[in-house]
Amino acid sequence: MLYIIGLGLGDEKDITLRGLEAVRSCRKVYVEAYTSLLSFGISSDGLSKLEELYGKTIAVADREMVEEKADTFLSEASESDVGFLVVGDPFGATTHTDLVIRAKKLGVKVEVIHNASVMNAVGACGLQLYRFGETVSIPFFTDSWRPDSFYEKIMENQRLGLHTLCLLDIQVKEPSLEHLCRGKKVYLPPRFMTVNTALSQLLEVEQVRGKQAYSEESKCVGIARLGSIDQVIIAGSMRDLLAVDFGPPLHCLIIVGQTHELEDEMLRFFSLS
Amino acid sequence: MLYIIGLGLGDEKDITLRGLEAVRSCRKVYVEAYTSLLSFGISSDGLSKLEELYGKTIAVADREMVEEKADTFLSEASESDVGFLVVGDPFGATTHTDLVIRAKKLGVKVEVIHNASVMNAVGACGLQLYRFGETVSIPFFTDSWRPDSFYEKIMENQRLGLHTLCLLDIQVKEPSLEHLCRGKKVYLPPRFMTVNTALSQLLEVEQVRGKQAYSEESKCVGIARLGSIDQVIIAGSMRDLLAVDFGPPLHCLIIVGQTHELEDEMLRFFSLS
Repeated sequence: MLYIIGLGLGDEKDITLRGLEAVRSCRKVYVEAYTSLLSFGISSDGLSKLEELYGKTIAVADREMVEEKADTFLSEASESDVGFLVVGDPFGATTHTDLVIRAKKLGVKVEVIHNASVMNAVGACGLQLYRFGETVSIPFFTDSWRPDSFYEKIMENQRLGLHTLCLLDIQVKEPSLEHLCRGKKVYLPPRFMTVNTALSQLLEVEQVRGKQAYSEESKCVGIARLGSIDQVIIAGSMRDLLAVDFGPPLHCLIIVGQTHELEDEMLRFFSLS
Repeated sequence: MLYIIGLGLGDEKDITLRGLEAVRSCRKVYVEAYTSLLSFGISSDGLSKLEELYGKTIAVADREMVEEKADTFLSEASESDVGFLVVGDPFGATTHTDLVIRAKKLGVKVEVIHNASVMNAVGACGLQLYRFGETVSIPFFTDSWRPDSFYEKIMENQRLGLHTLCLLDIQVKEPSLEHLCRGKKVYLPPRFMTVNTALSQLLEVEQVRGKQAYSEESKCVGIARLGSIDQVIIAGSMRDLLAVDFGPPLHCLIIVGQTHELEDEMLRFFSLS
């Protein structure tokens, strides 16, 4: 059996009792390291905290391992119970769907243990989840690569009066191009996009495209460390939020659509002015 | 302190460790009974299972209590720790946002403990969450009340190639009109909408509106008891799913938009044919 277990958003205590039972019953336990483990502070003592609480040794399955060597731990899972820990909910990322498909094809049983993810916990800011349109991703721009497919999507959401959740880029274990060229595999330090970078990229794209999908005056909600004890939620215009320091990762951003009274009332608690 | 604690979707074991710690530290614990407690089998032994595991007496806060007498337990929360348990995630329903606002206005501290909700756990069917448009609610039709505001929303989602999550009506503690007229407060037995009823209402509305937002051939995913051990996920056309018995509540329905290869591959595992 392969257990895919959501860890939730905060820290090691956000696992469910069902998840904890499953972890403790597994012969081998892996944790994904490539989507958003930053929020658990894996770089420092996050992993050992997980191991201590769960009473298990946990192997870090980085992107290469999950995408290239999945067959190894899927074959382990065909013989004994294997746990695969995922920050947030197992279906927050495409990669985990792929893992389920591979497992099913090999005849390995899969049990998914759900948890909170950014996709539902953003409700904490007071905007109603059923009033969100398509979710967009904002990738880090480079000198030569400035993709803006999110622009049309935000515009459609705005036209329909819907809120837009913007997921901000995380780059973990990105190979260094300079080193790749020399035949070595060296990784760049992890990077996560701040609300500020997202906003300045968004405003740059609006300048280029010019269809008034949004403007410096557009109401937004910036969120940092959603679901953690030190979570920060601040509502304000794009211009205002550009100047706010949201602190450590992870960040996400909501572009607000038409609001109901209840939403406005809640947003006021998080308002800058 | 008012703790608003998500219980997740399955049963008493889907609470998080953080949630359990909070419950155990509270002097008084309430559980909401009006949105979706059916999934925990509260009618039979669900409540006692919760009480046993959490080591606490739990009072059921029905709709009247939360909407009319919130001030009572908010004043309790200003003096000691009070827990308010919610099926799914605290921000799945508008009522809980209202509760947070009331608490904040009274100066009562609020801590929210997130969990899985239908809004993110639907990812289990393989459709990617970021490809969903606006969520719609399908209310029970009566002879004289057949609201169809969901129709335009589904049409917009379809036009944009997005999936539509349909939340199906739950009627718990609805007053009996017949008795109300006689001045008595008597409640109708709880009702929950099945996938089948939702589909036949949807097809009726399509017949009336006639804008081809969808048809009997439209691909859908019917889900029952999402996140429980006996969850059922079945993909097929509206016509095919009309004939499927999904069993006990709760049900929800997805109208599928444009799909990517990975989504198709996953849906095939749940396909009727």
